[in-house]
Amino acid sequence: MNPYYNIDDLLKYGNQALDLIGETYQNLEKERVVPDVEPGFLRQLLPENPPQKGESFEDILNDTKTKILPNLTQWQHPNFYAYFPCNMSSAAIIGDMISLAFNSPGFTWIASPATTELENIVADWIVKMMNLPEKFLLKNSGGGAILASIGISIFYSIHAGKYRKMKELGIDLTDPKSLKFVGYYTSLSHSENQRGLLVKDIPYRRAVPVHWNEKIKNFSIDVQEFREMVEKDISDGLIPFWCGATIGTTPCGSVDPIPEIAEVCKKYGMWLNVDAAWAGGAFVVPELRQEYGAGLEEVDSLTINFAKGTMSGNGSALFFVGDKKVYNESLGGKINPEYLKNKFTEENDITDYKDWQLGLGKRFNSLRLWFVIRKYGVEGLQKNILDKIELTKYFESLVTKSDKFTLVCKRSLNLICFRMIKDKDGNIIPEDKLNEFNRKLLELINLSGHYYLVGSEINGLYFLRFTPGNHNTLNQHIDALWKHIEECALKL
Amino acid sequence: MNPYYNIDDLLKYGNQALDLIGETYQNLEKERVVPDVEPGFLRQLLPENPPQKGESFEDILNDTKTKILPNLTQWQHPNFYAYFPCNMSSAAIIGDMISLAFNSPGFTWIASPATTELENIVADWIVKMMNLPEKFLLKNSGGGAILASIGISIFYSIHAGKYRKMKELGIDLTDPKSLKFVGYYTSLSHSENQRGLLVKDIPYRRAVPVHWNEKIKNFSIDVQEFREMVEKDISDGLIPFWCGATIGTTPCGSVDPIPEIAEVCKKYGMWLNVDAAWAGGAFVVPELRQEYGAGLEEVDSLTINFAKGTMSGNGSALFFVGDKKVYNESLGGKINPEYLKNKFTEENDITDYKDWQLGLGKRFNSLRLWFVIRKYGVEGLQKNILDKIELTKYFESLVTKSDKFTLVCKRSLNLICFRMIKDKDGNIIPEDKLNEFNRKLLELINLSGHYYLVGSEINGLYFLRFTPGNHNTLNQHIDALWKHIEECALKL
Repeated sequence: MNPYYNIDDLLKYGNQALDLIGETYQNLEKERVVPDVEPGFLRQLLPENPPQKGESFEDILNDTKTKILPNLTQWQHPNFYAYFPCNMSSAAIIGDMISLAFNSPGFTWIASPATTELENIVADWIVKMMNLPEKFLLKNSGGGAILASIGISIFYSIHAGKYRKMKELGIDLTDPKSLKFVGYYTSLSHSENQRGLLVKDIPYRRAVPVHWNEKIKNFSIDVQEFREMVEKDISDGLIPFWCGATIGTTPCGSVDPIPEIAEVCKKYGMWLNVDAAWAGGAFVVPELRQEYGAGLEEVDSLTINFAKGTMSGNGSALFFVGDKKVYNESLGGKINPEYLKNKFTEENDITDYKDWQLGLGKRFNSLRLWFVIRKYGVEGLQKNILDKIELTKYFESLVTKSDKFTLVCKRSLNLICFRMIKDKDGNIIPEDKLNEFNRKLLELINLSGHYYLVGSEINGLYFLRFTPGNHNTLNQHIDALWKHIEECALKL
Repeated sequence: MNPYYNIDDLLKYGNQALDLIGETYQNLEKERVVPDVEPGFLRQLLPENPPQKGESFEDILNDTKTKILPNLTQWQHPNFYAYFPCNMSSAAIIGDMISLAFNSPGFTWIASPATTELENIVADWIVKMMNLPEKFLLKNSGGGAILASIGISIFYSIHAGKYRKMKELGIDLTDPKSLKFVGYYTSLSHSENQRGLLVKDIPYRRAVPVHWNEKIKNFSIDVQEFREMVEKDISDGLIPFWCGATIGTTPCGSVDPIPEIAEVCKKYGMWLNVDAAWAGGAFVVPELRQEYGAGLEEVDSLTINFAKGTMSGNGSALFFVGDKKVYNESLGGKINPEYLKNKFTEENDITDYKDWQLGLGKRFNSLRLWFVIRKYGVEGLQKNILDKIELTKYFESLVTKSDKFTLVCKRSLNLICFRMIKDKDGNIIPEDKLNEFNRKLLELINLSGHYYLVGSEINGLYFLRFTPGNHNTLNQHIDALWKHIEECALKL
């Protein structure tokens, strides 16, 4: 039996690993959400040096059980309400096992035909089940791919946008005009928009401000203001080329006015990327696609993270482009050294996924998504989204019933933003103390490690975010959380 | 039982998935290496639309077995000799199962402490077991991370190099000097070097030519020529800032003269990235570290892919930098919106891996590497490397014994480059027919789909590459391959 590929070992200890996973899940609720450890704790638990001799699977699994798993932040815990939940599923875990087992990176079609084609199919399935614009189907002008992360996808859209603009202007990389490029992002968009522009060395990076919008009861950009920023920049000799907007911002779940932003982008020849990393999962529900997904027909690229509300685990960042020709070209798609040349690439209109990203290697992530979509079906994916919204509405009802707390903005899918406005004695907390008060409240809530929420701040207004998403979260957890929040409030 | 997180399902079908993996491995040898399919084949086997209702795991696993797995290019097949092998291991599969199960992205320390710290520890272990420069230990100036791919790591090194140079020059992104930046890569370096410079919009990109070097019996750059290129560029007003060199090139396994390249880079303030994606795995063997790893002390960053010779599967791209401060800064490390702020990040000298890459989300890949390193130990990893080299030497002996074939260059680890020089009648093939002849030979060898090699071309010289790396490849496979090659040669 091959020492490195021992099938008896695989079956025996793979089975034990499954048991460990199952057991950990079953006990998750009894554990803390955030572990009680200080930086550097793990160095004290593990040897300083790698072992010279091989060790047994028993020992490794046992250390995993006692030293690693209890010290994860438990994103699957029913009381995890921070960031955005990333719910898992048995289908994702099982599909994932097979996806790595044969380690067949599909950088070109021939490097692994089924790896490439299943990604083609899954990307198209997603376009269909979410009623995304037809241009995102691979048979049309665009297409989708599963890339390393949403952040990197946003970066690629910036890159492609700059490439397209330079082509349009007929300039090359030595042209001083390229120092005049200006990119925009709506200011509640994820920090990865800002980071992407930085890493792309775009000299002018503009955060389009947000204001309270009474009509939508949330923060939003003023499109007229955005248009004026763009026009001012043009009159100053700058070259607008890209805009990053968001459907479902992290700070408050707000939805940028995509149709109006798209109009400005179109008029001035800017690439519009819409990041729907979190909220995009809800597009599988037709009424939510309607409510949250206006204007997608006009965007140049779109990101949706199937790791967030769609149970597919990390490595599920969907990136759709409307014009795959210009996108692949922007990444230098024609770089094919001899060892990558093959007749299939030369003779066919196929996808070589190496032309969609930096890096050749690619995990077979589509297999995992294919498991998830098939196992639950479109209806199961819909139900998952709707169930989490129901939980959120329940929390919302508790906030609105309380006179000490208030919603900061309108609920967006499974996100609630709220803050405390009256102290324990029922007195209104003065405006200048509100932020401090709520920061302390969050600290108290998280102190025990049994609940995990994060805070947010918009235009100087601080508040708490609550977003449930894990499958084992029930109304009773929300009741307990609310009781805990009220108790913490009494301590302030 | 939760429909999305059904533990009974997980155990039952997870075990069936393990069985399917084991069974597929056991039958791998009977199957083709490259499937007999045409582009578009999978669309004909799968439904055009995603299912409305959920399906059973039985059906999904069965389709995986009959439609997906047989149509992968079988990178784990004993007769896979193309690109560079990416051998797997039972430890990698088992560790990987647990790494996704709880989906705890460690973008900041607090977002999952054990996720972050295990990556710290594994990166340090690798520095120690490969005797890499001390500066790459996290307690020192640098450190390591597992990034999405080698290609993206190379790109980040280009980015950091430009950032460092701009800082040194005291210029910002609007300065026309930034249009004078010139990057270099040794011309046998992976195409991802070229792509990285392109995506970084570097206006001047220079491939340093290679020549036959009789002393090392392989192709190599002439460092004097490189120095002159740099000096010529400087006298033309350009600003050299980065060089990509390689230990173990894909075309022929050659090793760039790192110490001498580093001298030039140091003199002119260029960031030197060394890509040892493939050959770096061999650094675990002290004599190979000695033979292949000269000059590493002087490099600014280094990439090693543990998916290649180190049995860890895709998602094992190690990236080491000598100066993590400048590296993290270059990626805008200080971008921390409210929802990412936390006292651990503020008060401690910890790693927030979001500052090492574009994209927040990060799979728990270090767990898989930790399983592999522990299960086989340093000695097991060494044995794996040495075993594959032994197989290669056996093939080498067959080539050298034959008068029809010749080695193109000296064997490099487990890579042999060879070509046919005499036709079936024993006549020397004329120089101007050699490439054509060998291209046809490769076509014939691969025609049956039962063997897979790729070709390479350097300075107009075409040849075949042979590189064994899978655990089930034995001398008898190599005998059969050689017999097959000789039979193909007779058909030419």
